[in-house]
Amino acid sequence: MKTLIAVSALALGLLAGLPASAQFQKPEDAVKYRKAGFTLMGAHFSRIGAMVQGRAPYDAAAAAANAEIVNAIAVLPFAGFVEGTAGTEKGTASGKVWSERAKFDAGAKKMQEEVAKLVTAAKAGNMETLRPAFGNAAGTCKACHDDFRNP
Amino acid sequence: MKTLIAVSALALGLLAGLPASAQFQKPEDAVKYRKAGFTLMGAHFSRIGAMVQGRAPYDAAAAAANAEIVNAIAVLPFAGFVEGTAGTEKGTASGKVWSERAKFDAGAKKMQEEVAKLVTAAKAGNMETLRPAFGNAAGTCKACHDDFRNP
Repeated sequence: MKTLIAVSALALGLLAGLPASAQFQKPEDAVKYRKAGFTLMGAHFSRIGAMVQGRAPYDAAAAAANAEIVNAIAVLPFAGFVEGTAGTEKGTASGKVWSERAKFDAGAKKMQEEVAKLVTAAKAGNMETLRPAFGNAAGTCKACHDDFRNP
Repeated sequence: MKTLIAVSALALGLLAGLPASAQFQKPEDAVKYRKAGFTLMGAHFSRIGAMVQGRAPYDAAAAAANAEIVNAIAVLPFAGFVEGTAGTEKGTASGKVWSERAKFDAGAKKMQEEVAKLVTAAKAGNMETLRPAFGNAAGTCKACHDDFRNP
């Protein structure tokens, strides 16, 4: 049995086309929203990581389900990077998100592409295919964290 | 153009079949996870609410996209209600989540059903269909909040 959740790329594009600030009543709401998205992505991505790194038994169906969840959420958090929400504390968004926005957006797109590939790889059902796809996706997380997150 | 995100109900079932605690390293991680899920759901659900309540212009495509996102995330947060994570502060999970677990689980299922209907209603593309479906879904949120969230 499969449940198909259709997300209209056009409709998401319409959402993305709004000024992001219009989607949040307060700047804090935007920060809370993007952090929530990354929390969910991280939780499900790390379950695949546990399999890849041998800390959990390999379960092909669970790996694919987790990859699908990460992929579904990966489009969301970037709407939360509204102007005026840079932080200063460790782990918060650096002002470079806004001063180097094109690079940040390219990093987000690259992550989404690698996560989409991770879904395909996870569905192949073998660790040999899953492992490098996980590594590539993890690399896109790290790249943005290194460049755009306050140390 | 449509992007189809296939979430295998079987695979999600496998995830759900694990002891929930096995999915989180620490109880705090489970709490953070479930709160993140509700934050994302609330953000997207409230955008439909703004249309229904006349605080935002009605945009059928955006309503449908938001409903799809709520629906995709609605299956996730309940895995975070692991034993030993009741709170005492306002807004945290009451101990009744665990002492009345069957009622809590039934409420979660009811919410998921009404959110699935909300997707269909939103796709119908008219406010007359959307409004009652939104109200029904909102009612399931409130019912659980009233019963299972510390006041």
